[in-house]
Amino acid sequence: MMEYGLVLPDREKKPRNKGLTILIDNGAPLQLFKDTIQSSPDYIDLVKFGWGTSLVTRFLEQKIACLQDNGIDYFFGGTLFEKYISQGKEKEFYQYCKSFGCSYVEVSNGTIDMSNREKASYIYDLSREFTVFSEVGDKDSLTANTQDSTEWIENIEEDLEAGATKVITEARESGTSGICREDGNIRADLFDPIRHSGIPMEKLIFEAPTKQMQTFFIEQLGSNVNLSNIALSDVISLETLRLGLRSDTFHFENQEPLEID
Amino acid sequence: MMEYGLVLPDREKKPRNKGLTILIDNGAPLQLFKDTIQSSPDYIDLVKFGWGTSLVTRFLEQKIACLQDNGIDYFFGGTLFEKYISQGKEKEFYQYCKSFGCSYVEVSNGTIDMSNREKASYIYDLSREFTVFSEVGDKDSLTANTQDSTEWIENIEEDLEAGATKVITEARESGTSGICREDGNIRADLFDPIRHSGIPMEKLIFEAPTKQMQTFFIEQLGSNVNLSNIALSDVISLETLRLGLRSDTFHFENQEPLEID
Amino acid sequence: MMEYGLVLPDREKKPRNKGLTILIDNGAPLQLFKDTIQSSPDYIDLVKFGWGTSLVTRFLEQKIACLQDNGIDYFFGGTLFEKYISQGKEKEFYQYCKSFGCSYVEVSNGTIDMSNREKASYIYDLSREFTVFSEVGDKDSLTANTQDSTEWIENIEEDLEAGATKVITEARESGTSGICREDGNIRADLFDPIRHSGIPMEKLIFEAPTKQMQTFFIEQLGSNVNLSNIALSDVISLETLRLGLRSDTFHFENQEPLEID
Repeated sequence: MMEYGLVLPDREKKPRNKGLTILIDNGAPLQLFKDTIQSSPDYIDLVKFGWGTSLVTRFLEQKIACLQDNGIDYFFGGTLFEKYISQGKEKEFYQYCKSFGCSYVEVSNGTIDMSNREKASYIYDLSREFTVFSEVGDKDSLTANTQDSTEWIENIEEDLEAGATKVITEARESGTSGICREDGNIRADLFDPIRHSGIPMEKLIFEAPTKQMQTFFIEQLGSNVNLSNIALSDVISLETLRLGLRSDTFHFENQEPLEID
Repeated sequence: MMEYGLVLPDREKKPRNKGLTILIDNGAPLQLFKDTIQSSPDYIDLVKFGWGTSLVTRFLEQKIACLQDNGIDYFFGGTLFEKYISQGKEKEFYQYCKSFGCSYVEVSNGTIDMSNREKASYIYDLSREFTVFSEVGDKDSLTANTQDSTEWIENIEEDLEAGATKVITEARESGTSGICREDGNIRADLFDPIRHSGIPMEKLIFEAPTKQMQTFFIEQLGSNVNLSNIALSDVISLETLRLGLRSDTFHFENQEPLEID
Repeated sequence: MMEYGLVLPDREKKPRNKGLTILIDNGAPLQLFKDTIQSSPDYIDLVKFGWGTSLVTRFLEQKIACLQDNGIDYFFGGTLFEKYISQGKEKEFYQYCKSFGCSYVEVSNGTIDMSNREKASYIYDLSREFTVFSEVGDKDSLTANTQDSTEWIENIEEDLEAGATKVITEARESGTSGICREDGNIRADLFDPIRHSGIPMEKLIFEAPTKQMQTFFIEQLGSNVNLSNIALSDVISLETLRLGLRSDTFHFENQEPLEID
């Protein structure tokens, strides 16, 4: 694409199936939330209301209305799903999501003790009513470090077969567990096998809360990689990384659309 | 309490004597400040205008008016008190606080060379006109590391006897001195003796600017622990930690009100 | 100066030639941007639209209008200059700056392979139409670490001779390259020789995105040192550091205006 005389990498346009930017709202006040959405609607595909924040958000309806006005979809963080399940309240979770007009849900087992098989059964159930994003990887870094790439790939494939539209790879809001080490570096022993597993990369969404992680995934998988857990304050910065307009990705010439293996 | 079908820990309601959330305003612009307050008034008890920021805040009156409209009290950071005292201007400090309608003041000696006995005399004086929060602990990490639990407990008790309503334990905005080590970890050699000293925990306010510290104090002392130096952007996140709605405190079942020894 | 009964260091008044505070806008949404500017116009001299963010900022004209209304000037980050040059488009860069009414430009070579001599030729060209800030230092920490003080001083002098009004010392938005080590500490082997080189300190602008760096430069060079890459959220905090109203610079008595060697 050309922009003010510059040649820049091609970016998919909304609505898009790859190159998704998914924000995490960690409880922003209402006007700041609306300001963020209205200032950059073209660069935001979905918003996740992180963990259980929606339950203590006074103006949740107004936030949702703002997203709908700007062509942006939304869902509640997987930890909220897990809280309901841990209290045996799948039906109440369903009702909660329906009452806020959700068309997406996130299904995860990053905090509670639940096998991937059981998680897949929830994906199967919920996918009849919602578009389901599932999540793979543990929030506890000790547990996460015991999981190898074989387990990750099996879990991703099981989730997709059960009905997940895309699968999210865990990194938390901080980028210190799941696919990351505690020091914030990405585990090559997980990423490389996943990348070469035959799973289409557009089926994956990488949690990438830090500039370091965003840079890594863009360099590895191109401008149109799906990224989640993006802070509200990083919308513009991420878009410049995708377009080679920041020093970190300035020299990166391989920003073509994702290849599907 | 029940919320959308979920069982959650009981939270004290405002006005409350324990479970206080005290924000630190480090100089937020006016509209963002108002937005933060208006989006979550139920979860904010007081706002501290950090260190000397109030002196260079153009719209301080408007910030204060917003707090009053939302049933939230306020005070100036202890460093401002220390600046006035270091120039021999106790009377001017008193006038400054009165001119902004303060009913609270913070009295500290974290930066200047002042004995706890002298600090206690200021507490005594000011407690005739204001509700006084005093602070214990040094902002300089080298000095702070020389202070042991005996000294902390004696200072806390001296402050309470002199007229402090509650005592704040120092950690700075960054969580790297006072009750913390420079690496951000809490000093068990201070915390454990204080906890078992017989001082009622509701008489203490713990500066806890990081999620790590907030999680620690909630796990140790329950949902209704008093916490200060909370960033404006963390109001909702902290409330979810208190309610077990985030992974970090998800499994924590001991979220009953504080016991008073 | 006296403020509410306190004696504080003298600060230059706007428009000022030293003591500049230059913000970096990393893509703030429009209302937050305006809120920041309108809340503290006296403490902001210029705003840099960081790296290539201006290209993906929906409401750039409105941001610029707000700055003009508040007597604040602006320029685009050096990385944008480098992007245009890397595509052989000096003329398009010129037109881009003119189309947004810029009177300032930043000329740098922190990312692309360009000799200082070549950079100086761009400074010479552009200084006929714009006030030019040039930048010295590399954004890549490995490259940066190979540059010694002799090279820095020669580059600064070459830039000034070519027509730069002031020269910026690189530190990035993160404070981890250029004049900094990767751990965020300032390289004394660079700073000390520069300071004693005979270059007037008011001709330099120090990128200082962290409180640690701001404190260092204020302690070394006084309240009225020129600082850049200040986050929008740090305007008030920086002003309190300049005035000795925060613990970090509380005891600093040497806050007189800069001496020019």
